[in-house]
Amino acid sequence: MTDAQQFTSQIRDDREHGASELARTCLDTLARHAGSIEVTSNEALRRQLIEFAQGLQSARPAMAAITNLIGEWIAAVERLPGGNVSTLRDDIKSISTTLILASENAVSSAAAHAAELVGTGKTVITHSLSSTVVAVFECLAGNVKAIVTESRPPSEGRRLAAKLSGLGIETDFISDQQMGLFAKRADVALVGADTIAGDGSVINKAGTYLLALAARDQGIPFYVCSESCKRSDHSSVGIVLESHDPAEFNPPRLAHVKSHNIYFDITPPHLVTAWITEHGRQHLDHLTKG
Amino acid sequence: MTDAQQFTSQIRDDREHGASELARTCLDTLARHAGSIEVTSNEALRRQLIEFAQGLQSARPAMAAITNLIGEWIAAVERLPGGNVSTLRDDIKSISTTLILASENAVSSAAAHAAELVGTGKTVITHSLSSTVVAVFECLAGNVKAIVTESRPPSEGRRLAAKLSGLGIETDFISDQQMGLFAKRADVALVGADTIAGDGSVINKAGTYLLALAARDQGIPFYVCSESCKRSDHSSVGIVLESHDPAEFNPPRLAHVKSHNIYFDITPPHLVTAWITEHGRQHLDHLTKG
Repeated sequence: MTDAQQFTSQIRDDREHGASELARTCLDTLARHAGSIEVTSNEALRRQLIEFAQGLQSARPAMAAITNLIGEWIAAVERLPGGNVSTLRDDIKSISTTLILASENAVSSAAAHAAELVGTGKTVITHSLSSTVVAVFECLAGNVKAIVTESRPPSEGRRLAAKLSGLGIETDFISDQQMGLFAKRADVALVGADTIAGDGSVINKAGTYLLALAARDQGIPFYVCSESCKRSDHSSVGIVLESHDPAEFNPPRLAHVKSHNIYFDITPPHLVTAWITEHGRQHLDHLTKG
Repeated sequence: MTDAQQFTSQIRDDREHGASELARTCLDTLARHAGSIEVTSNEALRRQLIEFAQGLQSARPAMAAITNLIGEWIAAVERLPGGNVSTLRDDIKSISTTLILASENAVSSAAAHAAELVGTGKTVITHSLSSTVVAVFECLAGNVKAIVTESRPPSEGRRLAAKLSGLGIETDFISDQQMGLFAKRADVALVGADTIAGDGSVINKAGTYLLALAARDQGIPFYVCSESCKRSDHSSVGIVLESHDPAEFNPPRLAHVKSHNIYFDITPPHLVTAWITEHGRQHLDHLTKG
């Protein structure tokens, strides 16, 4: 297995990081690869890197940030003029750096907008672990309480609780099936997204749809905060929801019984109070126009 | 600790059985106790047994079947004439037997009504483990498919999957947070109840409310099937939801983070398509009149 193949399968199997973080890790690795790969010609460098990038794009089809950011990277690399290999390596690295910085800034801006919308002194319930939602809590630390779900599998809510604990934020930690009970105690539900589909549907860790339903029934707003590169042109119907090995939650092995471990679910737009990106609060028609 | 105290704390700590089964176990134990307890007078026998019964009633306040069935037992025991101790022991045993049989018959009738309402060839999604729901599956076996949630903690959905496997029923087994995804694949949602509150709210294993919300959003009916002795006169507001040790789901121990393990949630009546008891499909006004 080549380094590129190894990294691609690492991205495919990553259960630890959200879509934004993974997309930036991909860009960073493409930059390193541009610096180290052994090639004799400008065209070989470009071709091999673009092949690597395309493999990464298809590794996590449910994560539009990966598809989109790497898509921008490919387009920019294709536009680069010819020239010697060493200059091309530097130009490609600089494309990666620019895109990573833009993504980091987008996350910070989106988080700042969300923090303003949430306001101070509120209890925020969230599901899964989103680096954007962590950034919102960083903005509000000292003036916010949290309710965090375990988010099985692999229970990334445990890592979120550790982050919030580090920020000194008072946090209630619950198993996933208690979400309905605790939505009642929250003022706001706030999640990140793996992808926002063309119709405004939110593809995120399985259970997000349940939180949105509970928020609606309890009369609290349901906010989705993410950088705009999470937008996909595909409708939610066309999006493939990742499945992983059910062994992750150790189901019983029984005749006639089939276990499932679908990682994402789809929250329809009618349950979303607001989509928040680096451009602020987005309206559905604006959002779906792209 | 006396035998009575030991049994009462066993009932308090039972995470394995539903309310109907526990109520019948209590009646059976009261009958055995009536046969074996050492007393010299008729009145001492009656008094000690009623004290034991009252302790059992308060052991699981969220389970109306226990309160109600034992309440009927106490009333019947109080009505028994005086006489010698041996006759009284026999009369008390016979009261228990009669109530147990009536409860078993009520469960069977409720299940038969629910099976008729569900119909054949359907996929039924359920949460938690209800002996009444198992009876519905027994009625429909050979002509039904099931979707079973893990129902943490303590994951009694695993035992339900084993029962359905034994009945040869094709079953999809999912972790709780996938409930929304799979409600979409079901024709009907069906659950038991620990208690039906005065306003028709359903107190059942935490997560039931989420299933009801998903059923509503997906346009499938949400049926609650239980014997009528699960009815409580209290409104859902007055009902205490049991909490257990969060260690059951092994939450992280962190500064500023408090973990919760509330076992039940409350599904409001507007999410219930039908309540089904031994008297058939109940309408809300009829149900709330008692």
